[in-house]
Amino acid sequence: MISATTLFSPVEADLKELSENLTRLISARHPILGAAAEHLFSAGGKRVRPAIVLLASRATLGDRPLTQRHRRLAEITEMIHTASLVHDDVVDEAALRRSVPTVNSLFDNRIAVLAGDFLFAQSSWYLANLDNLTVVKLLSEVIKDFAEGEIQQGLNRFDTGMNLEIYIEKSYYKTASLIGNSAKAAAVLSEVDPEIGDRLYDYGRNLGLAFQIVDDILDFTGSTDVLGKPAGSDLIGGHITAPALFAMEEHPNLTQLIEREFAENGDPEKALEIVRNSNGISRAKELAAHHGQLACHSLECLDPSPSKDALTDLIDYVLGRMY
Amino acid sequence: MISATTLFSPVEADLKELSENLTRLISARHPILGAAAEHLFSAGGKRVRPAIVLLASRATLGDRPLTQRHRRLAEITEMIHTASLVHDDVVDEAALRRSVPTVNSLFDNRIAVLAGDFLFAQSSWYLANLDNLTVVKLLSEVIKDFAEGEIQQGLNRFDTGMNLEIYIEKSYYKTASLIGNSAKAAAVLSEVDPEIGDRLYDYGRNLGLAFQIVDDILDFTGSTDVLGKPAGSDLIGGHITAPALFAMEEHPNLTQLIEREFAENGDPEKALEIVRNSNGISRAKELAAHHGQLACHSLECLDPSPSKDALTDLIDYVLGRMY
Repeated sequence: MISATTLFSPVEADLKELSENLTRLISARHPILGAAAEHLFSAGGKRVRPAIVLLASRATLGDRPLTQRHRRLAEITEMIHTASLVHDDVVDEAALRRSVPTVNSLFDNRIAVLAGDFLFAQSSWYLANLDNLTVVKLLSEVIKDFAEGEIQQGLNRFDTGMNLEIYIEKSYYKTASLIGNSAKAAAVLSEVDPEIGDRLYDYGRNLGLAFQIVDDILDFTGSTDVLGKPAGSDLIGGHITAPALFAMEEHPNLTQLIEREFAENGDPEKALEIVRNSNGISRAKELAAHHGQLACHSLECLDPSPSKDALTDLIDYVLGRMY
Repeated sequence: MISATTLFSPVEADLKELSENLTRLISARHPILGAAAEHLFSAGGKRVRPAIVLLASRATLGDRPLTQRHRRLAEITEMIHTASLVHDDVVDEAALRRSVPTVNSLFDNRIAVLAGDFLFAQSSWYLANLDNLTVVKLLSEVIKDFAEGEIQQGLNRFDTGMNLEIYIEKSYYKTASLIGNSAKAAAVLSEVDPEIGDRLYDYGRNLGLAFQIVDDILDFTGSTDVLGKPAGSDLIGGHITAPALFAMEEHPNLTQLIEREFAENGDPEKALEIVRNSNGISRAKELAAHHGQLACHSLECLDPSPSKDALTDLIDYVLGRMY
């Protein structure tokens, strides 16, 4: 299977520069924030979001060189994403993210709130100074969607009134909005036909949904080692994702367990077994594959290039994680 | 002495509409956020910031009616201000603000982080949709300054390397940037001579500095009843403001007390007595009056109007609080 690093080879040098810029930017403000930044931006992150922006930039620019504004856009997406993770971890009181201690646990809530606010603020300033109102609107939509997703995720746990439509909406707010809108923003900065921007939005939206669905499948099928947290933590924490949603249709008993918030002895194990023995996981895989196909079709508008190939391979990479 | 309500009479109806809009906006998202919003926007806030925006709007519009975009700008300033207060209280672990329990103490840190993020996000979306890149830049500067102020305030406590320049810079980030930049933005939306916008920025900057200095004086001279927190809490918490800064020049002993973070019995009382018996408070009053005068001169560019009069009276009101 192709690795994320090989996948991003057309923009590998760009990504390296991006990581260095971000760490430098934050370290300059204060030693403690610097330590948090080092932790955030060097902890083996895959830089999927800025990589997509850079690939979409190069794919739409053709022979023209990558501009400083395209690079800035990629930085903005990584900053908004990181800021939302840091604040999510405060809201969720999370101690680990992908096996690495969170900022709130390693430092404290105060530093986590400060670091997140600094990243949001800096990104909104960078954004304003891209001098393009369309791009400002696209990314401010993303920031609004993140806050919406944070509220839904933080405040609507154990809500069995959940359905597929709400699940897709949540996943859009949490993951797909940033990828879709920032890919479109890259096309806007490249000044290509707006139709191409709309197709890149569709690509990012569907890739983002597939990405989130696969993540949610892995929460049931992955090992603690790979996940960096106990398998099934989403469901046990009250987050009802695609596999559980489909399993609830087959097994009303699961709904009961969720409604009583797994209060009785053995409830968590029982719930995970129901999901794993249901068709929930295979139906979720079909759903992810469906969005992968939609993402693939959206790329047809692009001229052939190594960056276009990488965007296509990325879909297979995302879907490949679930097998 | 004139009351804040009489002062704002030219925009009283506008302010009422603004408060209702803000509470409705947040309540629509989630019951718990609604309760937090009710708490935030109804707790007898004086709405000084949106009042200044509305007065600057009416003073620059002349006979033309107030537009929806001017109203939106006023809402944005109140949202950014409130968001920063809510996150500041998490960072400072504050339980009370002006005698009223903070969101983090009344609800919890999670709700406080969510409510602040929601307000920041919503304001950046409103801002983008004002469709004016100059205004987007002015207000994104404010958001960046707030984060900078939050870092300085949260992470540089008990730092006796503080001087007047740094103090003014901190006060600008914390208070004056929002008032100055948003007053200028009101002039931009009114499409008047840019020179008038620059003068309104000077007005807001100097009024904001005076406002902050007076607040810092009151922390030493006010009673617990009026302050809603014990007198001297800023200094004891490690925040070195104008009166203490001037007192340190007269009494090196104060510096020692701060450096050992008031660790010994009786240190806090000793420190407060030093400040109160020094020339620190009268020198701070002179500094506030100086910025009040600068603010007053900046208004000379405006044609006579009830709104211009209110902006002038506001300076006296702010300075009047310190006597």
